[in-house]
Amino acid sequence: MTIRLSQLFLRTLRDNPADAEVASHQLLVRAGYIRRAAPGIYTWLPLGLTVLRKVEQIVREEMNRIGAQEVHFPALLPKEPYEATGRWEEYGDGIFRLKDRKDADYLLAPTHEEVFTLLVKDLYSSYKDLPLSIYQIQNKYRDEARPRAGLLRGREFIMKDSYSFCLRDEDQQAAYDAHREAYLRIFERLDLPVVPVNAVSGAMGGSASEEFLHPSAVGEDTFVESPGGYRANVEAVTTPAPEPVDFTHLPPAQVHHTPGTDTIATLVDAANSVHPRTDPETGEPREWTAADTLKNVVVVVVTPEGERKMAIIGVPGDRDVDLKRAEATIGAKLGIAGEVAVEAAESTDFAKYAEINGRPGLVRGYIGPGLSLEDRQLGADEENPSLTGIPYFVDPRVVPGTSWITGANEPDQHVFGLVAGRDFTWDDTIESVVVRDGDPAPDGSGPLSTRRGIEMGHIFMLGRRYAEALGLQVLDENGKLATVTMGSYGIGVTRALAAVAESHHDEKGLIWPGSIAPADVHVVATGKGAEVFETAEKLVGELEDQGISVIYDDRPKVSPGVKFGDAELLGVPTILVLGRGLKDGNVELKDRRSGEAQDVALQEAVSTVAERVRSLR
Amino acid sequence: MTIRLSQLFLRTLRDNPADAEVASHQLLVRAGYIRRAAPGIYTWLPLGLTVLRKVEQIVREEMNRIGAQEVHFPALLPKEPYEATGRWEEYGDGIFRLKDRKDADYLLAPTHEEVFTLLVKDLYSSYKDLPLSIYQIQNKYRDEARPRAGLLRGREFIMKDSYSFCLRDEDQQAAYDAHREAYLRIFERLDLPVVPVNAVSGAMGGSASEEFLHPSAVGEDTFVESPGGYRANVEAVTTPAPEPVDFTHLPPAQVHHTPGTDTIATLVDAANSVHPRTDPETGEPREWTAADTLKNVVVVVVTPEGERKMAIIGVPGDRDVDLKRAEATIGAKLGIAGEVAVEAAESTDFAKYAEINGRPGLVRGYIGPGLSLEDRQLGADEENPSLTGIPYFVDPRVVPGTSWITGANEPDQHVFGLVAGRDFTWDDTIESVVVRDGDPAPDGSGPLSTRRGIEMGHIFMLGRRYAEALGLQVLDENGKLATVTMGSYGIGVTRALAAVAESHHDEKGLIWPGSIAPADVHVVATGKGAEVFETAEKLVGELEDQGISVIYDDRPKVSPGVKFGDAELLGVPTILVLGRGLKDGNVELKDRRSGEAQDVALQEAVSTVAERVRSLR
Repeated sequence: MTIRLSQLFLRTLRDNPADAEVASHQLLVRAGYIRRAAPGIYTWLPLGLTVLRKVEQIVREEMNRIGAQEVHFPALLPKEPYEATGRWEEYGDGIFRLKDRKDADYLLAPTHEEVFTLLVKDLYSSYKDLPLSIYQIQNKYRDEARPRAGLLRGREFIMKDSYSFCLRDEDQQAAYDAHREAYLRIFERLDLPVVPVNAVSGAMGGSASEEFLHPSAVGEDTFVESPGGYRANVEAVTTPAPEPVDFTHLPPAQVHHTPGTDTIATLVDAANSVHPRTDPETGEPREWTAADTLKNVVVVVVTPEGERKMAIIGVPGDRDVDLKRAEATIGAKLGIAGEVAVEAAESTDFAKYAEINGRPGLVRGYIGPGLSLEDRQLGADEENPSLTGIPYFVDPRVVPGTSWITGANEPDQHVFGLVAGRDFTWDDTIESVVVRDGDPAPDGSGPLSTRRGIEMGHIFMLGRRYAEALGLQVLDENGKLATVTMGSYGIGVTRALAAVAESHHDEKGLIWPGSIAPADVHVVATGKGAEVFETAEKLVGELEDQGISVIYDDRPKVSPGVKFGDAELLGVPTILVLGRGLKDGNVELKDRRSGEAQDVALQEAVSTVAERVRSLR
Repeated sequence: MTIRLSQLFLRTLRDNPADAEVASHQLLVRAGYIRRAAPGIYTWLPLGLTVLRKVEQIVREEMNRIGAQEVHFPALLPKEPYEATGRWEEYGDGIFRLKDRKDADYLLAPTHEEVFTLLVKDLYSSYKDLPLSIYQIQNKYRDEARPRAGLLRGREFIMKDSYSFCLRDEDQQAAYDAHREAYLRIFERLDLPVVPVNAVSGAMGGSASEEFLHPSAVGEDTFVESPGGYRANVEAVTTPAPEPVDFTHLPPAQVHHTPGTDTIATLVDAANSVHPRTDPETGEPREWTAADTLKNVVVVVVTPEGERKMAIIGVPGDRDVDLKRAEATIGAKLGIAGEVAVEAAESTDFAKYAEINGRPGLVRGYIGPGLSLEDRQLGADEENPSLTGIPYFVDPRVVPGTSWITGANEPDQHVFGLVAGRDFTWDDTIESVVVRDGDPAPDGSGPLSTRRGIEMGHIFMLGRRYAEALGLQVLDENGKLATVTMGSYGIGVTRALAAVAESHHDEKGLIWPGSIAPADVHVVATGKGAEVFETAEKLVGELEDQGISVIYDDRPKVSPGVKFGDAELLGVPTILVLGRGLKDGNVELKDRRSGEAQDVALQEAVSTVAERVRSLR
């Protein structure tokens, strides 16, 4: 197939679009692959559609290879199945909802667990029908709060989602493993390095999940690696909790007047200058550090229904709270179904707790868990009520016996030597602090290092949640009804395309891998005479006969500079230039990635290109 | 590619689904091609998806052949472009509307004229860029009042829609003609006979349009043909108006008491028994017929906004009003933009006009235009007001000088000899009566015959409506801005698949044309020994090597009867049976359509099948 630039519906742009911040977004728009239709919603122009179909085909081939079968569900679906699993509510503002003319509720599906489950229930009834893996490559919809980075986080996008249905857990494990291998092959064919990491399953539910992250500075995810091979999304990292400390010989806590110490830095300064300590073992002076303080961070957990619930997280003062990590688990700890958002509390939230029973409630900068187990300031334990009743979580490093400087719940007052388990307690521990390079891996495999990544795929062992909610049972070998166990597996197809563009470009433009380039070779004819175009036509025809797809720049009145610029912007990996060298019987073969060029005899051009193209595909 | 029935996600059904009334719907569900997800919304199972992709590919190839370029727009689009052309309102209840989390309005696009226009405006600016034809194959959405007949009228469906952009009218005509030819080739490849007919352009606007109707008893459209080659959708048929008649010598109208004559039949009986007439030329008695009466039908025109407006249509009493024909034009005549619905008036509508200024308004069964031009009962002419003020339309057969028996607007009273143009007048004529076999073609090409058909495609000369509304101008050869002229062209892809199923089946199941069958050959292995399955495996492998796609019924414990039944239900055009004949070295080759079977030597099976498959593709 040959695409002629004189005919192609294309206009390349010199300038980056105003709303594009990342390279893939900028270049895909400038090179005429996509065009914005609405926030997070894009139109595919001819070249973009060609690349998209190639990405889809790679995904399809690898899914078929593991025996998964392709189906296609509607994007517009009725509410009822999503209501049965609770996800209609759990998705909150994150999905598009609508009504039909009869006032029935519908959604634009963000993912299809429910209807796949119902379809299998509808058609299958016996263990003999299983295991089954089915998939689709389909438009998905999410009403993202912040669509960004072009195709990397859109509101209408294409996903491959597949679902496996098994009676036995070991079959489910095999289906999961097969998908894992297929995903690695897909990303390899896309020339897209990925790191599979342990992940939290979030609103999807299920027992285990892994994400495939493509390391990238523009990624929204952070993941960790250890020298010993531990890999996890930062949200899934667990902190090795220290052993509890014997506190029987620790001195009682003391409240000190610490004026103007509503930050950790000022508090540490004041502690060292006014209340210095000595090391109990050596008797030497030992400075207080931020790690000796317990910082109580007030957050607001926004439920899927939009309700704002307060919670407080106590963390060592040298640590910051990572709201995304807190989001991953705090909802479940508070008994909230669905995805929650965690935000820093605002003045209006604090104001509600200014005074309780004539005592100060939340004093900003001086919040603490209370001075004793009998006089609790924080916590939601109804058996042992606290003054505020606000749920109180602590970092896993806060183990019984650790001693802290923390707020005394009065302006300008801190308590020193407040001992966990002796003087205060909490509702639960929570993983919420920013993971730092050097933190220990939970499996003892060494210090962690952190990297940014783009989530390219996510695979879940779902277990029986969906099958139970929707009644998917089959007859087992003994004729008894048994509930099916499931897996679900997603790849962002449009996101994969964008990630390839993000990792395959230079300052001049895109550089596609051969497997998904819009053409195998970009032929540029330069010069004014008819001869060069005639020679080019003939060459293009011969390439086409070899099954090589061509973008042919046949524009008669366009300067060589513009043509070269466009070729570099469009990013076909092989560029063939017909121009001045023709008088010596030569054409120029350029490698888009390295920029290297070599002269090739015209007679050998087709075979040379064919060989190179085959090695790149 | 080989599909093994032991593995395929398929369950064939013996019984027709309860909601399926037409054969294509029944069989596509029973044979496991599609499954209902919601009213008018379907899931594609593996076999259905395979056929769908083949239909799409045929459409794609023929569009590419005429130089149209494929793009892909979002289904979810913002309101603004549709507001600019007025279609946001005009579509009324017919589209799905929704809001995002920021309360911005969106729709699920029913067709994409606006955004294609804006895209071209966005990228192109010169006459040199035109003509341009671009298309997509994409999910469309319409919130049909009555989704029916499975895929034939769905709410989520796939369309190929293309748009041509030209500066000069003659280029636009060429683009239109090219699409027309491409459509005929597409339907020929689908083995789907179609009749191109003149059509009304409806809400799309534009100067000319043609529909491609597939003749079928289950079609929703009616079209007419004449021996001389006139072809039109019944909604577009025009009635040759008779010449006006000289009324100077006609006697004055007379009101008669006609008790109990509130139907045309009772009125004609009463006229003949109480007020017989003689032929003025021969002096012989001449019976009154229904054609001598003027029936005034009260309708309600429902606007896209849901407002109900009354109108009255006067038609010869031997004719019935076809509400769909009235819908095609009455909106424009009433100055209403967008698609209207026309309904029979209800008692509550009549009740509003029971009495006006102390006189009866609408007396059911006795409604007439009034007894003289000075005493008008019906009509919306503000210069010459009528008692009711209701718009009054008449059939084109009601020409000046024609004389009628019609209602006198009093219970049990009719007026005889009321002369059009002398005694009464009207706001406009309207095409609204049911077209009958034998009615004359408007072009004089002979009597019309009517047939039912399914609308498979529709092509429009849009003119400059959209380009003007959205400001699509380019610089012409003289450097002046000129507005672009457009065409739009649609094929219902899912509907085409259903129409093929509808016209290619028998009582046993589907019978696909080779061009879109889910496989080239269906191999059935029957018997209990391992040998037959081993032979079949080998044969299937050889067929696959020849590039022949196979459905292989390898199920070990299924009876031959079930296997044959499934093969006939699935509808692959060639069936190859391996069974008892094998001991004589034979296999059986069956033609699914004719039912004919022949024995073929096993050694020749592959070549025989290959030859047959190539002739069918």
